[in-house]
Amino acid sequence: MTSFKRKRLTADEYYTGILNADRAVLGKAITLIESTLETDKQLANEVIERCLPHSGNGIRVGITGVPGVGKSTFIESFGMFLAEAGRKVCVLAIDPTSQISHGSILGDKTRMQNLSSHPNAFIRPSPSSGSLGGVTRSTRETVILCEAAGFDTVIIETVGVGQSETAVHGMVDFFLLLMLAGAGDELQGIKRGIMEMCDALIITKADGENKTKAQRAIVEYRNALHLYPPTQSGWAAKVGICSSLTGEGVPEVWDIITEYETLTKQNGYFTTHRTEQEKQRLHETIEQLLKDRFYHNPAVVKKIKELEQQVADKKISAYSAAEELMKNRE
Amino acid sequence: MTSFKRKRLTADEYYTGILNADRAVLGKAITLIESTLETDKQLANEVIERCLPHSGNGIRVGITGVPGVGKSTFIESFGMFLAEAGRKVCVLAIDPTSQISHGSILGDKTRMQNLSSHPNAFIRPSPSSGSLGGVTRSTRETVILCEAAGFDTVIIETVGVGQSETAVHGMVDFFLLLMLAGAGDELQGIKRGIMEMCDALIITKADGENKTKAQRAIVEYRNALHLYPPTQSGWAAKVGICSSLTGEGVPEVWDIITEYETLTKQNGYFTTHRTEQEKQRLHETIEQLLKDRFYHNPAVVKKIKELEQQVADKKISAYSAAEELMKNRE
Repeated sequence: MTSFKRKRLTADEYYTGILNADRAVLGKAITLIESTLETDKQLANEVIERCLPHSGNGIRVGITGVPGVGKSTFIESFGMFLAEAGRKVCVLAIDPTSQISHGSILGDKTRMQNLSSHPNAFIRPSPSSGSLGGVTRSTRETVILCEAAGFDTVIIETVGVGQSETAVHGMVDFFLLLMLAGAGDELQGIKRGIMEMCDALIITKADGENKTKAQRAIVEYRNALHLYPPTQSGWAAKVGICSSLTGEGVPEVWDIITEYETLTKQNGYFTTHRTEQEKQRLHETIEQLLKDRFYHNPAVVKKIKELEQQVADKKISAYSAAEELMKNRE
Repeated sequence: MTSFKRKRLTADEYYTGILNADRAVLGKAITLIESTLETDKQLANEVIERCLPHSGNGIRVGITGVPGVGKSTFIESFGMFLAEAGRKVCVLAIDPTSQISHGSILGDKTRMQNLSSHPNAFIRPSPSSGSLGGVTRSTRETVILCEAAGFDTVIIETVGVGQSETAVHGMVDFFLLLMLAGAGDELQGIKRGIMEMCDALIITKADGENKTKAQRAIVEYRNALHLYPPTQSGWAAKVGICSSLTGEGVPEVWDIITEYETLTKQNGYFTTHRTEQEKQRLHETIEQLLKDRFYHNPAVVKKIKELEQQVADKKISAYSAAEELMKNRE
C-alpha cells in the first residue's frame, strides 16, 4: 500500500516554504494541486486557502498567438527584460493540444534557456493530462501559489484555439495577442473572437526585411481593432511591433501594460474585473462539483447505462432520460 | 394574463403536421423548441419524443469555413444540386456570432434565394439568442423534427470559431470543411483542431484564374491531412475542389459523402457514431439540468451573493465556497 503513496509535505510545510519563496517547495505544491487523487485535494485546498491572502499583488498577463508567431522567443525576450529590471516573473501555460502532442508549449524548458535559469524567473510547463477545465483550475490555483511566493508578474501562455484563450482571458488582467504581419482577411476572420478580447496586439518578427511590412500592418490592425465596441475598462486596445531578435519594441510592450494598469487602477476597473473573475471561478467550481457528485451517485451509476441505451435506441429523448436520472438520485 | 400567451398547437397537432410534412407546422414546432419559457418545454419535449422514432433516416452533414470562404454560395449550389436530384434538403445553422451581430449566418434567406424557394428545401436561420449550449440543444432537436418531416439531407452550417465547430461535429455524420486556396501556415495552425475533425476538405472558388492555384493546393492540404492519425471510421479525409459559380466539383462533393456513408454503414461505424452522439447528448442535458436546478434552489439563491463576496475578498477559496453551497442545498 505505502509503496504507492507519494511523499507529501504537511500543509504547514508547503505554506512556509512558499512564503519563503522556496522553489522546490513551490514546485511540489503545484504538483499537489495538479494531482487528481481525491486524497490530495483536501491538502491542496488547505494550502491554497492559506496562500490566498498573500496572492493578487502583481499583474497577470495572458499571451496568445498561433503556432509560428514566435511566442516562446517573445516570452524569453520579454521575460528577460522584466527579470533584469528586477521583476519576479513566473511563466505558466494552458495548452489544450498537450494532451494529444504530449506538451507542445513549454514542454521543453530549453526553449527559454536564458529565462529558465534566471534567478528572478520561474517556468512551469502545462500539465500534460486532464480536461481543459481541470488544467484551467490548476493553473488558476498555481497563480495563487506563485504570487504568494513573491512573483509579481505572472505570464500565462496559450495557443490560438478558441477555448483555451477564453480560459486564459478569464484569469488575467491584461491579454496580449501576438500576430504576424501580412496575415490576410481569412486569418482575421477566425481570430475575430480572440482579437476582440485583446488589450494589445503586438506584431512579432519586425526585423530585417519584415520590418517595413510590420510597420504597415500596424495601421491595418489598428483599423480592425477600432471596429470593436469599447470595453468597460475604458482602455482602447493598442497595436505595436517588436522583434525578439533585436529586442526592439520589447520594453514598449511593458510600457503599454503599465499604462493599462495605471488607468484601470485609477478608474476602478482593475479591481472590479478581478472580483468578477473570482466570482466566475466560484461558478465553474460549482459546476464541476455538481457533475462529479452526480456521476458518482450510486443510483445514477446503477441506472445510467440502461438509460444511455434507451436514448441510443430512440426509445426516449435525452431530456426525459436526464429527468429520470435526476429523480432517481439518492 | 392571456394577452401574453402565445398561440400554441396541441402536441397532437404538431406531431401530425410534422409527419405530414406541413412546413408551417414544422416552423411553429421549431419556434416552440427554441422557446425558453418553462411552460413551453414540456410540450416541446412531448413533440420531440413523438417524432423521435421517425427521425434518423437521412444523412447529417456539417459544413464550416471561415467568413469569406463562400459558405452560403456553396450551400446554395450544393443544396440545389441535391434538391434537383430529388433529395429533401434542410439547412440549419449554429452561429455563435449571431448574439453579437444579430444573425450573420442565414439571417437573410435571400442569400440562398433559389434554394429557399425550392419545394424540396427548407431553410431555418440560427436562433439569434441564447447560449451556445441552448442553441446547440435546439438545433439538435430541430434535426429530429426535420427528419420526422421527411427531410433526408440535413445540412448544419457554422462559422470557423472553435466551439461551435465542436458542437456541430457532435451532431452530424459527415463534417465538411471549406477552405480557400493559398491559405498560409498561420491559417492551418489555427484550424488544426478543426481540420482534424473534417471528413472532407473542399477548396472553394476554384474558377477563373484561381483554378490552377486551387488544384495546386489539393496536394498541400492532402499532405497536411495525412499527418493526422487515422480515425475509428476507417475513412481517410478526402480533398477536392469546387466552384459554386460554375458548379464544377459540386456533384463530386456528394459522391464523397455517399462513399463515406457506404463505407461506414458497412463497417458499422455509422451506427456506433450516432449512438455515441446520442449518449453525449444525454450527458449535456444532465449537466444543463444540474446547473438549472442548483441555481434555482432557494437555499443557494439566499446564500450565493454572500459567498461570492467572500471569494472576491479572498476570505475563502472558490472551492470552499462551492462546497458550502453544495452542503446548504435544500
